[in-house]
Amino acid sequence: MSRSVPTVDAVAEALGELRARTPVVQSLTNVVSANFVTNVLLAAGASNAHIDNVHEAGGFARAADGVLVNVGTPDDATAQAFRLAARSAHEAGTPWVLDPVGVGGLPWRSDLAAELSAHRPTAIRGNASEIIALAGMRGETRGVDSSADAAAAVPAALTLLDRAESVSASGAVDHLVGRDADGAVIGVRVGGGSAMLQRVTATGCALGGLVAAYLAVTPTPLIGLAAAHVHVAVAAEIAEAAAAGPGTFAVAYLDALYTVDADTLRARAQLEVFEPRR
Amino acid sequence: MSRSVPTVDAVAEALGELRARTPVVQSLTNVVSANFVTNVLLAAGASNAHIDNVHEAGGFARAADGVLVNVGTPDDATAQAFRLAARSAHEAGTPWVLDPVGVGGLPWRSDLAAELSAHRPTAIRGNASEIIALAGMRGETRGVDSSADAAAAVPAALTLLDRAESVSASGAVDHLVGRDADGAVIGVRVGGGSAMLQRVTATGCALGGLVAAYLAVTPTPLIGLAAAHVHVAVAAEIAEAAAAGPGTFAVAYLDALYTVDADTLRARAQLEVFEPRR
Amino acid sequence: MSRSVPTVDAVAEALGELRARTPVVQSLTNVVSANFVTNVLLAAGASNAHIDNVHEAGGFARAADGVLVNVGTPDDATAQAFRLAARSAHEAGTPWVLDPVGVGGLPWRSDLAAELSAHRPTAIRGNASEIIALAGMRGETRGVDSSADAAAAVPAALTLLDRAESVSASGAVDHLVGRDADGAVIGVRVGGGSAMLQRVTATGCALGGLVAAYLAVTPTPLIGLAAAHVHVAVAAEIAEAAAAGPGTFAVAYLDALYTVDADTLRARAQLEVFEPRR
Repeated sequence: MSRSVPTVDAVAEALGELRARTPVVQSLTNVVSANFVTNVLLAAGASNAHIDNVHEAGGFARAADGVLVNVGTPDDATAQAFRLAARSAHEAGTPWVLDPVGVGGLPWRSDLAAELSAHRPTAIRGNASEIIALAGMRGETRGVDSSADAAAAVPAALTLLDRAESVSASGAVDHLVGRDADGAVIGVRVGGGSAMLQRVTATGCALGGLVAAYLAVTPTPLIGLAAAHVHVAVAAEIAEAAAAGPGTFAVAYLDALYTVDADTLRARAQLEVFEPRR
Repeated sequence: MSRSVPTVDAVAEALGELRARTPVVQSLTNVVSANFVTNVLLAAGASNAHIDNVHEAGGFARAADGVLVNVGTPDDATAQAFRLAARSAHEAGTPWVLDPVGVGGLPWRSDLAAELSAHRPTAIRGNASEIIALAGMRGETRGVDSSADAAAAVPAALTLLDRAESVSASGAVDHLVGRDADGAVIGVRVGGGSAMLQRVTATGCALGGLVAAYLAVTPTPLIGLAAAHVHVAVAAEIAEAAAAGPGTFAVAYLDALYTVDADTLRARAQLEVFEPRR
Repeated sequence: MSRSVPTVDAVAEALGELRARTPVVQSLTNVVSANFVTNVLLAAGASNAHIDNVHEAGGFARAADGVLVNVGTPDDATAQAFRLAARSAHEAGTPWVLDPVGVGGLPWRSDLAAELSAHRPTAIRGNASEIIALAGMRGETRGVDSSADAAAAVPAALTLLDRAESVSASGAVDHLVGRDADGAVIGVRVGGGSAMLQRVTATGCALGGLVAAYLAVTPTPLIGLAAAHVHVAVAAEIAEAAAAGPGTFAVAYLDALYTVDADTLRARAQLEVFEPRR
């Protein structure tokens, strides 16, 4: 299979690159997740700098290895920093991730996320309803289990490929779309993980940060996106086996992000390529 | 006993309602506690959205199931968001909690909390000195142990019933006041808990968030307030037994908030109704 | 040896004072570290109030026992609060710590930290590159291991004694400089600790907070600085022995900060006085 397709070998190789190169992620993320995003990046093997003020956000985005822009708790000042970081990242060729937290139900940030997405994110990562809303489509996700949710977001994810290089919707089975080296659109499903991820805040935000780290060390955006999804899914499975509740789960999750190696990923990764349809 | 009195059965029933309905709490809380408040809500069985910007705070408070306004680390922008959320919650009938962190020693936030309290909070939750200060009374709490503190705040808590539907002062024994269905003022003492709660930051703030969640699923504000106090007290007792220090305590506390069920509450709840006196 | 030299006995005694007096630290710190800084202070035996708004920061700095100013995630509003707190602390004689996070690579905060340092911090604590940059010197730290880094920052730390009473650079072996009671410049090396501290965010920031607490209870700034460095180094060693990764390390670290006593410090402290040279 081509090196530009996200295979299990490709994500295992990406983990080795992450640990060897320790990419520096600039995070512009919400106050709920700021600590956990950084701890996940440090545990997984990357580095982090939370720089979200208007004086430094743009300049640092030129030098960082990857940038996370997460609109979870924006205010006027950080929204402006988001714009500066997104623009700089795009101009400088720094890979950057847009996490459209809360987009859909909240008009102000929905407009903000749409504006940010014009700076061509390397990856967009959200839950199904956020991806659907960001694409300007209507979701009917209420009452549907989260597995179906992520599959239901595939048409919206494909639409977003007009402005992003890759897109993922998280769910019981994560659904990712992007392109191979020939420009052909392909999809990837990533299974595994743990329902306990829903009981610990900021696990999705931290995945967004880890995507930014992997984008810095992988040959295509879709491989980077897939590697981050697989890394967290495998770590969450391992953590769930050791957990008595959300407290012990979160602790074991950080340990597992740190201890998993390429062989563990190869043995446990649940990843399949599929042909996405609108 | 009337269904409008906070009995052990009433709080056990409330836990079932919380888990069945997963109320969404909008939190406007301080940066120290933002992550822990959300993790406590997710562990206990509720949901959370931290929305504290001026563009979205008021609108979301109309749709949320409960709102927490915690003045722990205010600035000009979040203070304005507090005002908008409190006003909207009151107008829309969304139950809301005021947590007057630091009120008393700090004039600016003391004025802010007094202004917010005019929007008729469904519950006010604080420590004894904060409750006394918010009521405009003078505390002489220095050198007094925290159990006596909470009892000493009862007259102040009764005074605050002119603007809030229920009020609690946390201590070694928590003291709560509110009304039964006939409008008669009653008090509730909640014992148990753990001294280790003082060694982990944001446990009080997280209790405030959990009060907002319970207010959404209980027949009276005082029952909601009591259910939250009992839930955390029982979880803290269980956690203390497993803890070697504040680190393991916090982890075990999140696990226990998640694992406690109605039977555990019935077996362990230390709750008694009393006739409060000024 | 004079009581004004940081011996193992002096830092063991300082721990007893910390526990006996529970100093209140006002923290003005970044959003990544806010929760962890407070939890470290509570675990170690101090108290904390995160007060970083322009209305309250200056006034509280007059009443607090110690103040931490950490420039990790500044914006215009908190930068102004930093100025007010630093000025008030200096005027009122409240010991205060400057943690110059990120200084060097980021011009805006570098200017801010330089401005703040004019208010004569009682201690400056950073990593080697930050100390070198704050001193206006050029670092050549790339490719050098962190142990060498901290030693390499000694000339810069000595330069900073023109505006601060004590200075430390963290590394595999921490290097501290200050003065004895006769005004003679002396250095202290603190070994031990754990490489796992690099895998948990905000451990350096939390050390800065603990320095502020110790400065409130020790006879000289250098003894306070050394006591905080030794307390965290010993706790980190104990935690590492119990850790399977960064998650369990962080939990065990909080436990160890709480459980270590004077005898543990005496048995484990790796501390030596040296004569620093430019």
